[in-house]
Amino acid sequence: MYYIDINCDVGESFGAYTLPEQDMLFDYISSANIACGFHAGDPDVMQRTVARAVEKRVAIGAHPGFNDVQGFGRREIHMSPKEIYNMVLYQIGALYGFVKTAGGKLHHVKPHGALYNMAARDENLATAIVQAVYDFDKRLYLYGLAGSKLILSAHKIGLPVASEVFADRNYQDDGKLTPRSQDDAIIADTTQAVKRALVMITQQQVLSTNQRSIAIKADTLCIHGDHEKALLLAKTIYNQLIQQGVKIKAP
Amino acid sequence: MYYIDINCDVGESFGAYTLPEQDMLFDYISSANIACGFHAGDPDVMQRTVARAVEKRVAIGAHPGFNDVQGFGRREIHMSPKEIYNMVLYQIGALYGFVKTAGGKLHHVKPHGALYNMAARDENLATAIVQAVYDFDKRLYLYGLAGSKLILSAHKIGLPVASEVFADRNYQDDGKLTPRSQDDAIIADTTQAVKRALVMITQQQVLSTNQRSIAIKADTLCIHGDHEKALLLAKTIYNQLIQQGVKIKAP
Amino acid sequence: MYYIDINCDVGESFGAYTLPEQDMLFDYISSANIACGFHAGDPDVMQRTVARAVEKRVAIGAHPGFNDVQGFGRREIHMSPKEIYNMVLYQIGALYGFVKTAGGKLHHVKPHGALYNMAARDENLATAIVQAVYDFDKRLYLYGLAGSKLILSAHKIGLPVASEVFADRNYQDDGKLTPRSQDDAIIADTTQAVKRALVMITQQQVLSTNQRSIAIKADTLCIHGDHEKALLLAKTIYNQLIQQGVKIKAP
Amino acid sequence: MYYIDINCDVGESFGAYTLPEQDMLFDYISSANIACGFHAGDPDVMQRTVARAVEKRVAIGAHPGFNDVQGFGRREIHMSPKEIYNMVLYQIGALYGFVKTAGGKLHHVKPHGALYNMAARDENLATAIVQAVYDFDKRLYLYGLAGSKLILSAHKIGLPVASEVFADRNYQDDGKLTPRSQDDAIIADTTQAVKRALVMITQQQVLSTNQRSIAIKADTLCIHGDHEKALLLAKTIYNQLIQQGVKIKAP
Repeated sequence: MYYIDINCDVGESFGAYTLPEQDMLFDYISSANIACGFHAGDPDVMQRTVARAVEKRVAIGAHPGFNDVQGFGRREIHMSPKEIYNMVLYQIGALYGFVKTAGGKLHHVKPHGALYNMAARDENLATAIVQAVYDFDKRLYLYGLAGSKLILSAHKIGLPVASEVFADRNYQDDGKLTPRSQDDAIIADTTQAVKRALVMITQQQVLSTNQRSIAIKADTLCIHGDHEKALLLAKTIYNQLIQQGVKIKAP
Repeated sequence: MYYIDINCDVGESFGAYTLPEQDMLFDYISSANIACGFHAGDPDVMQRTVARAVEKRVAIGAHPGFNDVQGFGRREIHMSPKEIYNMVLYQIGALYGFVKTAGGKLHHVKPHGALYNMAARDENLATAIVQAVYDFDKRLYLYGLAGSKLILSAHKIGLPVASEVFADRNYQDDGKLTPRSQDDAIIADTTQAVKRALVMITQQQVLSTNQRSIAIKADTLCIHGDHEKALLLAKTIYNQLIQQGVKIKAP
Repeated sequence: MYYIDINCDVGESFGAYTLPEQDMLFDYISSANIACGFHAGDPDVMQRTVARAVEKRVAIGAHPGFNDVQGFGRREIHMSPKEIYNMVLYQIGALYGFVKTAGGKLHHVKPHGALYNMAARDENLATAIVQAVYDFDKRLYLYGLAGSKLILSAHKIGLPVASEVFADRNYQDDGKLTPRSQDDAIIADTTQAVKRALVMITQQQVLSTNQRSIAIKADTLCIHGDHEKALLLAKTIYNQLIQQGVKIKAP
Repeated sequence: MYYIDINCDVGESFGAYTLPEQDMLFDYISSANIACGFHAGDPDVMQRTVARAVEKRVAIGAHPGFNDVQGFGRREIHMSPKEIYNMVLYQIGALYGFVKTAGGKLHHVKPHGALYNMAARDENLATAIVQAVYDFDKRLYLYGLAGSKLILSAHKIGLPVASEVFADRNYQDDGKLTPRSQDDAIIADTTQAVKRALVMITQQQVLSTNQRSIAIKADTLCIHGDHEKALLLAKTIYNQLIQQGVKIKAP
């Protein structure tokens, strides 16, 4: 029997700017990465989103990002490891407040956007992040890009990890994602994305852009929640994986 | 034997704007109200301040305020009780992250500035705040103005409370503080302030501006940490109270 | 021949949070109130929105609000008149930068949300706002609620004004808007709203909720741009007014 | 006769965080770079600082930085050239509002902190900044590091420039500043700093850390306004340059 976690970034509304569709995604995911107010989300959105996750029995993760709502946390901001540590710890604590009062349980942490990408390749930054998670609660899972410095650093420190793969992204021969700046970065066809997901889950392999089969660790599959077709994609992947006998649950 | 808690707002630096003297206040206080990043403080300042409080064995309180660094949390911002609840809960959680990793213990919550003043007179707002504190951890003390709606609401819900008095402020016949807009709001003379503190602590009374002796509940004495003479004032009050046989400790 | 200005709040996107429909409103309005980055809008949104307004030959107004993106400028924030003056001047200047480089002309200023409502009834606040507008450029129009302190204060100081009316809001006998807290605040039926607009424009009168005909000054008609049916409403009102022989243009 | 401009970053207070000494610097500088609210400064501080500059007849410059008060604009934030253009234009406009109403004249623009440093070496970024300045008013001076991409780009587009030198920083053989990460980056001794300034002004040369005399363009000398000895340093340099017959004035 094969297992996979499906995770999605949620709680990305902010004040009057609401993304109502994210609410419906909860039926097709097993892990929710909830924005903590720095790049998206606000205390009201966080409260509602946590309540929804508890109700839907979806594993709750903190989704810390850079302090930059205008840039949605997608801009690189250069901070010292110590500052990164404190910024991440602050956001985990803030989300924890809502999780605790909602009677839920904090399950994992997944860095957001530029923070995720920078930490994937920079070990100092990765170490700062995983140390913050570890110091807060060493039983929390760290979700990070499969094969990245984030996963490596979490392993080193002794945090449980979930290696993340993307069904709708192309991979290079070295196992890294094809950069978004390239034309073939995204796999727009949902059917093909689902097929790739199945191969990753059942064979722990993926076909690179050079048509080479490369090894990949697939513990959790990321569904992007901030574009129009997110709900459709989530539903399709969820249903087809179940049809193929894959069990969907959080680690 | 008489007991009193001395509390002070600390951790009010922000980024490059440092208030270095606040660090030295820890020797003369028993409770520290630590800014949570909304009206002052930032994750780095919070981490340092919590570490200092743990080291100095000072009781740690969250000091949530309105989201307004420019106004230092002193401007009234009209929000719904639900928004206030979430805003306070967010900040308690954020501080808790640092307290937990520092091996400390969260002891109390004291609202800041305009939030404190509005909640002192508005029961809906007070209820929202104390509910957030209660839901997070019902053993936390609520620090609020003696005789205020905050204390009343905390009592009702079953939170332990500490009624706060001010040595350097004048009181009216009804037990309320003389508004800062009036000339006689502040008692500038430290010797007189200490005398008043002693009377409040030992007799639970204070002389109003009309020279009437009125009853007042004095569990905790507030020292303002953000003006020049804060350190001197704290030191003087602390030493003279001890000399008079008063024991200084957090509730 | 009757004239009316139709104004609409635009440029209310923020970062990744886009309200794309606002772009299409430009065909049915004669004045655009452009958010200045404090309650909505950001430098990129402002640049695009100003360019659009210049292209569509719509009169450009600065739309300053409280510094509160999360609250969308709808929360009352208590600041001194001096602070209000500087806050408004800052935002006018910021928008002016984009208007000047786009080869456009700044035409008016309309305060936003809570700032608009507070200044409608508080003369000190109104005076601070109109003084900022006057000091920046005394030829700018001040758009404010018909009969409000804003219009009064602008008159006093010598600014040209445009009295604003709402087609989709009910009025009380004293000429004030029925508060949104009441059930009959909004006129949901578009046909009726257009009829009311026509009466206001051609007769300078409006029927109050008590069915009394009261005098009202109608220089500019406000279309709300931030709800779903904004585009439809704007189009309907625009077309029907033209059909009735009303000429739509900015003052 | 030799001429030099002395410029200083001012208006760097923020809300309750005041740097009062900056006010006194105005007697010893000819150009003031005024923070525009993104990395420091707020509308009230800007208003006061502009008024002071007008009163002291000091040339007024906009000092735009990244939107990051906590980081004081010293953190690199990666934004597209288009975003940088709009961010700079916004801040120039905002400051212009205060300058215009104070009866002053905007004279120059000097980018702040990380924005200054990134634009010194990245031509795309430099071009975005100088284009914003040029589009707002092509008569404004661009202040930038001598020999940097900022100066180069400004030249290309046709803006007047002022090449900036530092009396208290060491230079490398290639004319670049010794990075702050190195021990010999700063020249702490004021007497030596003044001597170096004189050589740069009168001979347009500076001694590198390898004791080689290298050519340098010195139009304006930067005094750092945010550290303790700023006032003393400014006074000393100002007085000694005058004593040596150098005339101090803005370009």
